[in-house]
Amino acid sequence: MSQFNTDQRLKVEAAYQLVQRIFEAAGLPQTDAAIVTDNLVQADLRGHSSHGISRVRVYCNRIRDGLVATAPEITVINETPAAFHLDGGHGMGAVVAAKAMRMCMEKARSSDIAMCSLRAGTHFGIASYYTMQAADKGMIGFACSNAPATMAPWGGITPMLGTNPFSISVPAGRHSPIVFDSSSSIVARGKINLAEIENRPIPPGWAIDDKGQPTTNATEALKGSVLPFGEHKGYGIALMIDILAGILSGAGYGPHIGPLWNNSETHQNLGFFLLAINIAAFRNEEDFKAEIDQMIDAIKASKKAPNTDEILIPGEIEFRNGQYNRKHGIVVGPGVQRDLEALRCEFALEFDLAAHLHAV
Amino acid sequence: MSQFNTDQRLKVEAAYQLVQRIFEAAGLPQTDAAIVTDNLVQADLRGHSSHGISRVRVYCNRIRDGLVATAPEITVINETPAAFHLDGGHGMGAVVAAKAMRMCMEKARSSDIAMCSLRAGTHFGIASYYTMQAADKGMIGFACSNAPATMAPWGGITPMLGTNPFSISVPAGRHSPIVFDSSSSIVARGKINLAEIENRPIPPGWAIDDKGQPTTNATEALKGSVLPFGEHKGYGIALMIDILAGILSGAGYGPHIGPLWNNSETHQNLGFFLLAINIAAFRNEEDFKAEIDQMIDAIKASKKAPNTDEILIPGEIEFRNGQYNRKHGIVVGPGVQRDLEALRCEFALEFDLAAHLHAV
Repeated sequence: MSQFNTDQRLKVEAAYQLVQRIFEAAGLPQTDAAIVTDNLVQADLRGHSSHGISRVRVYCNRIRDGLVATAPEITVINETPAAFHLDGGHGMGAVVAAKAMRMCMEKARSSDIAMCSLRAGTHFGIASYYTMQAADKGMIGFACSNAPATMAPWGGITPMLGTNPFSISVPAGRHSPIVFDSSSSIVARGKINLAEIENRPIPPGWAIDDKGQPTTNATEALKGSVLPFGEHKGYGIALMIDILAGILSGAGYGPHIGPLWNNSETHQNLGFFLLAINIAAFRNEEDFKAEIDQMIDAIKASKKAPNTDEILIPGEIEFRNGQYNRKHGIVVGPGVQRDLEALRCEFALEFDLAAHLHAV
Repeated sequence: MSQFNTDQRLKVEAAYQLVQRIFEAAGLPQTDAAIVTDNLVQADLRGHSSHGISRVRVYCNRIRDGLVATAPEITVINETPAAFHLDGGHGMGAVVAAKAMRMCMEKARSSDIAMCSLRAGTHFGIASYYTMQAADKGMIGFACSNAPATMAPWGGITPMLGTNPFSISVPAGRHSPIVFDSSSSIVARGKINLAEIENRPIPPGWAIDDKGQPTTNATEALKGSVLPFGEHKGYGIALMIDILAGILSGAGYGPHIGPLWNNSETHQNLGFFLLAINIAAFRNEEDFKAEIDQMIDAIKASKKAPNTDEILIPGEIEFRNGQYNRKHGIVVGPGVQRDLEALRCEFALEFDLAAHLHAV
């Protein structure tokens, strides 16, 4: 495997094919494998390789260990025309969350707003995958999930909260949708996981070690705590997401959530909180989109700070990354290349990975 | 008025009495005056004097100038059992928002969730005033408002967005409710307004002047731009609130919102977005509250960072401030004392303000 020792670009069609086949071999039904594959490859396309196919290995491990159900029982515990309480049956997060968002949108069509509170969830990848579903159909989408405790509260050093991600997407007219997608930490912990997989240091300011001291070592950071964004404000947001997604649904919260990595023992039991708002109930949809376009144009045309080339709209860089990477391939580090090749071997799949890789 | 030249404590009952009488004299009906008074005094009690009775002067000016309706026509434009679109008729923000939150809670009782999208709003004070209404009744409350453009987008220097505030409140059991209330800037602009009223400098890092340079001068900062919290993340949140509260409702947004201060010409036309979620639809309410208590206990008992005396829960400091200030009086600066005394004179009210003030 000596060819897998540097960042390379992987053709997008090849990524879809290989990852789909790996997930099917791991036991997922074809349609579910397709959703999880799309979720991960879309993250890579958008430039968030921390949430991309670098996760295939850990997802497969968790299926193998029986901690993710390949044929989950997804149960509606309670519902009204505007809300439903779902048990995800420990199925693949992306499969369950995509279904839950579709149900939200269905209900929002008549109720104007709809929400889902979900327990027994597993890692759902990038939150914007679901909110963009809503924006695609003329709705505003909101999604958040709690996550294993890896972040100390403001003023503390023991991880008590996840880097709980949240996303809002809004459709535009001429422009690509506005897509906000953020962890409640300074950076997504996935970027530190990826640095560890690729054996790279992390920038100062991202994390503290288990003694509360600043560190640039990814492994020490993973043993310690990441830091909330905006100091006490990011801490407050993480806490509220843990309540909305976790405690409200009856899922785990804080230290009661099973880790994704290095955990062959317990379910994650994450919670999700999803919302869809039907724009057409409040505004003429075209007027709304035209006003979003005007807002984008005005912000982008406003005076720039020194040393700033361009003012960006949330999701704009990711949209451009997607256009570029769809054409040129997604960037895959050597650690991930080796993971994929190893999975290919384990599942005895015929696929010449090296043939689909090329220099960055 | 030589006695009004230093910070003093004003007895809470006196604050309620004087402010209520001023608002009634300014033209508000008694019940509306009571809501606005309560909204402002509560902010002072919680320690947010920037959003407290320091606003009485500007609210009265706007009533006098006909820019806030004392008998607003509040119209339901469209509704379902879970959502409604409201026109606030340019009535007092606190009156309209408190009514809208009550309607949300009413609907959430049968629909499990309910939302309000409101246009033609005016400054509503602290957002937590409304979300605490929901927490008081066993619901999770969410509220946000957009605000006049005073914050540059990340990478820009021209104010294009408000310091758009948002709040979430959650009921606890033994503990006081968890109350998150934050502007999307590093600090609420009201703190800079208050520094200007009191002729005090502001700390470095809060704002830039109109050339994009850092400043500690409150007046220069008010001409320039405040900065978002968490860099691009706070910018994204401010933008999304402007869309949810402003564009969705058909209110103004960004630079199209009328300023609160120094604006005797135009309505504000703010937008609000409010949500109430009925906890009992998803969990047994007592189980939920017990789990919130456990979460609070665990976080507060977790290991503290060096030089940290206590790990705080969002809203905890404000709750303690309330207990202390209710007993000892609210702190009022000399600028605000003089404003109140001047209003008392203008409206020819008999009230001995000095007699209710005492040393801090």
